[in-house]
Amino acid sequence: MLDQSADLDRVFHALADPGRRVMMERLSAGPASVSELGRPLAMSLAAVLQHVQVLEASGLVRSRKTGRTRTCSINPAVLHSAESWIAERRTLWERRLDRLGDYLADTAGPADTGIQQNETLKEGP
Amino acid sequence: MLDQSADLDRVFHALADPGRRVMMERLSAGPASVSELGRPLAMSLAAVLQHVQVLEASGLVRSRKTGRTRTCSINPAVLHSAESWIAERRTLWERRLDRLGDYLADTAGPADTGIQQNETLKEGP
Repeated sequence: MLDQSADLDRVFHALADPGRRVMMERLSAGPASVSELGRPLAMSLAAVLQHVQVLEASGLVRSRKTGRTRTCSINPAVLHSAESWIAERRTLWERRLDRLGDYLADTAGPADTGIQQNETLKEGP
Repeated sequence: MLDQSADLDRVFHALADPGRRVMMERLSAGPASVSELGRPLAMSLAAVLQHVQVLEASGLVRSRKTGRTRTCSINPAVLHSAESWIAERRTLWERRLDRLGDYLADTAGPADTGIQQNETLKEGP
């Protein structure tokens, strides 16, 4: 699991590039060689290798060299850690909204609840 | 919803900074002013504002100015889009592993289920 801030820096930085996301999309279908990863991208093999290195440094991708071929694959644990960080923020935010909804429902009368809520929201700061 | 690559570039870039993630953590508990967002961070108000601008440009955060106070809040739809992109990659990867597991179970099954299936097919009209 990733819990160190510097690790998440590297993971989100790695995902912030469209070419690297194309590589991750390819890898989600199964392992691939570096040249296979570069095929849909209009860039030199050297540039592809640099992107692969960024993905490896983030932990999102692992690679293994057999003979002259380097085969890359996804490290799902790291992908999951980035997903979890986002999901936790979103869940906290949604829970807060739920509590706000409960509070408004409690303080408003049983009739006209919806209207009461809208009016309260409009009056907000 | 986010589906354009440039949008995801900005979202992941915004999340790749530890200070901006601290701001997102604070905002997941509810709206906050720019100075509140900067409180736990050892940086100038100008630097805080720059980070807020990166978060706003990504769509992750929305802000509203009332008098001299700018209040920021999370835009959950954008947070969800980033989460979905990661989740889809992870799910595809896991499904592939499941299929691989099924294939291995079929080909190495103790009751030779695979052979049985083939025989049934051979009996057809």
